[in-house]
Amino acid sequence: MACQTVSELQKFVDIAKAVTKYGKVADYIPALGKANQHDLSVAFYYTDGNCVKAGNVERKFTLQSISKVIALALVLMDHGQEYVFEHVGMEPTGDPFNSIAKLETVNPSKPLNPMINAGALAVTNMIKGKDTKEKLNRLLLFVRKLANNQEISYNDEVAISEFQTAWLNRSMCYFLKEHDIIQGNVEELMDLYTKQCAIEMNTHDLAKIGAVFSLNGKHPETDEQVIPIDIARLCKTFMVTCGMYNASGEFAIKVGIPAKSGVSGGILGIVPNHFGVGIYGPSLDEKGNSIAGIYLLELISANYSLSIF
Amino acid sequence: MACQTVSELQKFVDIAKAVTKYGKVADYIPALGKANQHDLSVAFYYTDGNCVKAGNVERKFTLQSISKVIALALVLMDHGQEYVFEHVGMEPTGDPFNSIAKLETVNPSKPLNPMINAGALAVTNMIKGKDTKEKLNRLLLFVRKLANNQEISYNDEVAISEFQTAWLNRSMCYFLKEHDIIQGNVEELMDLYTKQCAIEMNTHDLAKIGAVFSLNGKHPETDEQVIPIDIARLCKTFMVTCGMYNASGEFAIKVGIPAKSGVSGGILGIVPNHFGVGIYGPSLDEKGNSIAGIYLLELISANYSLSIF
Amino acid sequence: MACQTVSELQKFVDIAKAVTKYGKVADYIPALGKANQHDLSVAFYYTDGNCVKAGNVERKFTLQSISKVIALALVLMDHGQEYVFEHVGMEPTGDPFNSIAKLETVNPSKPLNPMINAGALAVTNMIKGKDTKEKLNRLLLFVRKLANNQEISYNDEVAISEFQTAWLNRSMCYFLKEHDIIQGNVEELMDLYTKQCAIEMNTHDLAKIGAVFSLNGKHPETDEQVIPIDIARLCKTFMVTCGMYNASGEFAIKVGIPAKSGVSGGILGIVPNHFGVGIYGPSLDEKGNSIAGIYLLELISANYSLSIF
Amino acid sequence: MACQTVSELQKFVDIAKAVTKYGKVADYIPALGKANQHDLSVAFYYTDGNCVKAGNVERKFTLQSISKVIALALVLMDHGQEYVFEHVGMEPTGDPFNSIAKLETVNPSKPLNPMINAGALAVTNMIKGKDTKEKLNRLLLFVRKLANNQEISYNDEVAISEFQTAWLNRSMCYFLKEHDIIQGNVEELMDLYTKQCAIEMNTHDLAKIGAVFSLNGKHPETDEQVIPIDIARLCKTFMVTCGMYNASGEFAIKVGIPAKSGVSGGILGIVPNHFGVGIYGPSLDEKGNSIAGIYLLELISANYSLSIF
Repeated sequence: MACQTVSELQKFVDIAKAVTKYGKVADYIPALGKANQHDLSVAFYYTDGNCVKAGNVERKFTLQSISKVIALALVLMDHGQEYVFEHVGMEPTGDPFNSIAKLETVNPSKPLNPMINAGALAVTNMIKGKDTKEKLNRLLLFVRKLANNQEISYNDEVAISEFQTAWLNRSMCYFLKEHDIIQGNVEELMDLYTKQCAIEMNTHDLAKIGAVFSLNGKHPETDEQVIPIDIARLCKTFMVTCGMYNASGEFAIKVGIPAKSGVSGGILGIVPNHFGVGIYGPSLDEKGNSIAGIYLLELISANYSLSIF
Repeated sequence: MACQTVSELQKFVDIAKAVTKYGKVADYIPALGKANQHDLSVAFYYTDGNCVKAGNVERKFTLQSISKVIALALVLMDHGQEYVFEHVGMEPTGDPFNSIAKLETVNPSKPLNPMINAGALAVTNMIKGKDTKEKLNRLLLFVRKLANNQEISYNDEVAISEFQTAWLNRSMCYFLKEHDIIQGNVEELMDLYTKQCAIEMNTHDLAKIGAVFSLNGKHPETDEQVIPIDIARLCKTFMVTCGMYNASGEFAIKVGIPAKSGVSGGILGIVPNHFGVGIYGPSLDEKGNSIAGIYLLELISANYSLSIF
Repeated sequence: MACQTVSELQKFVDIAKAVTKYGKVADYIPALGKANQHDLSVAFYYTDGNCVKAGNVERKFTLQSISKVIALALVLMDHGQEYVFEHVGMEPTGDPFNSIAKLETVNPSKPLNPMINAGALAVTNMIKGKDTKEKLNRLLLFVRKLANNQEISYNDEVAISEFQTAWLNRSMCYFLKEHDIIQGNVEELMDLYTKQCAIEMNTHDLAKIGAVFSLNGKHPETDEQVIPIDIARLCKTFMVTCGMYNASGEFAIKVGIPAKSGVSGGILGIVPNHFGVGIYGPSLDEKGNSIAGIYLLELISANYSLSIF
Repeated sequence: MACQTVSELQKFVDIAKAVTKYGKVADYIPALGKANQHDLSVAFYYTDGNCVKAGNVERKFTLQSISKVIALALVLMDHGQEYVFEHVGMEPTGDPFNSIAKLETVNPSKPLNPMINAGALAVTNMIKGKDTKEKLNRLLLFVRKLANNQEISYNDEVAISEFQTAWLNRSMCYFLKEHDIIQGNVEELMDLYTKQCAIEMNTHDLAKIGAVFSLNGKHPETDEQVIPIDIARLCKTFMVTCGMYNASGEFAIKVGIPAKSGVSGGILGIVPNHFGVGIYGPSLDEKGNSIAGIYLLELISANYSLSIF
């Protein structure tokens, strides 16, 4: 079903757009640097199948860290909680998402949670499949099912750009390999991980995925239980405690919904039993979250009392 | 209204009690070391004024870190969010509650959140009052209003015991004083803080305080808005992201309700719009949470589907 | 014996003086902030009793961290190596002198060496004496014997100024007290430590103390073995590995003599079997060392081939 | 010239051998795990060409970290101090040799010194040559010149074993690559570095290399100035401040000579203007130094008063 443009939502987007100038488009992945700093779009996908939008919701962007929560769901379905949480912890951290120091100072050196890079690499490493191709394929099939959109794939240019510059992620992988948190070939894992991060969709698709989580894993269009209830809830919990990098605490206070952001400027938001949110606004604040996207969510959450707290 | 003993609740307490032997009573505050490791009691205080209980709910215990959330509410009422969050952050941390290292490595050196000791000391330092006596009095009046119980006071033996051994908290205070996060005399602050931690009540009182938070600050007995709505919600948010020390993430996943624990073995739990929980079980796990109390909450949350996620 | 002004030394001082403008007088201890940024003076005290100088060598300054090496010698004489090194380590560190984080991350939490503040506080805490007064008196007697100058005392204004602002040192003391590295009353220790740091002398006195170490503890004027040989050597070793804060490694490479600096701008230098050096130049580099004093030592060491390496 | 077995030296070896049982042969590089824990041998090579020995001095072992000081000398000859110290610092650290955390917490993220792994990798990365083969060849030629022994090469089994398991070193390389401390292909650097570490010789060769440093770079057999004086001195300075991992401070106090150890159990020691020392004793203490080798040096240093302090 196509999304309807709604003037009230557009009004909030117009207000929030004013802060794009205070942020910066990510440029550490060269291909991301081409984004338009002043873009901002949003879609709400309701659990009854309705959809509203504001801004250019057809523009595609890569998921980046948003993919972490999807990979986590898949891996929990692949292996169960016990196995997964032997390789990654459940605790939020005040450290930046790309920090390596804590891996050395905690014992055993297990990544604190699956939303920081070290933890996400450990998660992606657990996706089942006989090789990178099969693992990627399984992940893509899962994403397509969540968005109910067979067209979804990854952006090869972004994947290659990230693959060629991801030295810090390689550093983490080898550290984790030293400590037996990950096994196998690091370059293959980097190949898979950078393609995972480069999975591409628009805010409409992303909002629909949010709606699946809003219904605790049941798809609003297909009625299929795409994710088991307990896994869907677990993912939402991580989104609350660790979803917005080391600004998650402030976001929980000011917005109060499960959400996951990516350095592309995307945000996946979940209003339980109500609707999913997809946002794209590539101008980032210093913690790596969409600066206008967060402001937009603050405005909307306050206006419609969306906080779960 | 007196609490009724309920056999179903007693059944869960009996099951949970089995794990008290795997924990340890806190002994770093000598006076706490006298607790009975095998105690476990719980009270639910419903928003309609009903109350159920299991175990010896009349036994008093000191709040310890549970007091952090109450002091935070008072200080937010005293100064407003802006001022308070200039002195303490909003982010969860993977570090232990008594860690000092992060204060040095983050810049500026502001405690990450009000639920770790450094942050709680900064909060207590902001309680309004012309001297320690007036500050303590204001805090006690606030606690009495929350519990609707004029008998509540602090345990002098515990306060003195903690005052005489709180070297690490003094270390943090002076570090914070160096960085202008706290002002004034450290010994006076320690006097106030150790008395705050030694505020004493039973699980019935504590459950009633939880019920106030369940109603977003409105008292179930007096109908008074004891805490402004936004502050009550903010406190609950901190309880979710940081309330159970550096096991908060796991607790959010396994139990999923706002809660705050103390090293006395107390736990304050909040089931929004439904009831408050008071637990006392002094045998602690290695992170400092009541080992049987957490297990009890896991059993109850699973059985009654209490998670907010 | 009075020091003779030597034109060759004066030439080096004139060259080195040019860099005083790139440094800054310490102001974290208010009373130190009054120093003249452009001062630079030096004295050499030879083991045969001769002395040469350049600049105003009569100007007094406080020892600050230079006192750490003297207190260490006294404490080693008081207790022997085994006891002392149960309370403080022997290893250099790349951390700043006032860092507290490592105390938390190393286990057991023993200060890495006696030249950083945490270690120096542990050392001063071991000076024998029934009370602060007697401990200070014993230290002063030892300093007077080293300088063979009965006039030496401490600067009360500087001691008070530091006592009133030493929050970070108090923070460390309480941390060390928590971990049983130091015992007793922290305020009394701070009283003793700030007076120790405020011991005052001129470069002539300081050079003479250097000459005592040059002769491995034997006094060039009195022929008395003021410090046992092994302790004198041990102190020189610490001066090489940790004497110049976290610029000790670079100093060892560029100058190559045992030396200890203080934030007052003083430097104690030792050319084994040859002469002691006293320098005063209060303009500091970012690591807390006299910027012109270090440059002067580089010039002199290169010109006279003084490096022990 | 062949080494003479000397009974006095043998006596010290016999005493020191008693502690081999308290240590452990390194097994993180599988090929090293085959060593005999109870081996201990030593050779002194005097600057006049005489040589004494005790134990099986013909047994070959790989240099491991001892190679760091030789690579440093070569790189300083290749590029000069200024360029080299833009890529690696001069400061000792209290952290273990394989720590990565400090690279994140210091700014800019330059390895603290060339004797820890991160710094050594940065050094090896600067060896001149058009490819790995040429770089390795230049390093081998340099080592052969130092030992005046054309037979010296590297142990391929050890090199391969380390190459196949050096995940932590790869982790550091990628971290350094992220921060532009190293350039180029990490696998090629690992190939070169693991072969460098696997350069193999006996204690006689190693003692002769020590003698070259004893003479500030002049070869005792060939009279050639193999290393410029200032570079030889600089290397000795690093050996004093950082040569024995994070036991360097204690070693400076207890032994007091420039030395560098490796996890193979080798130690290179330098008694300035007198003789070089080569030791092999594969049983290691917990810091990674030859446990009997260090004890042997303590005995010898005390007996012959070898400390430079």
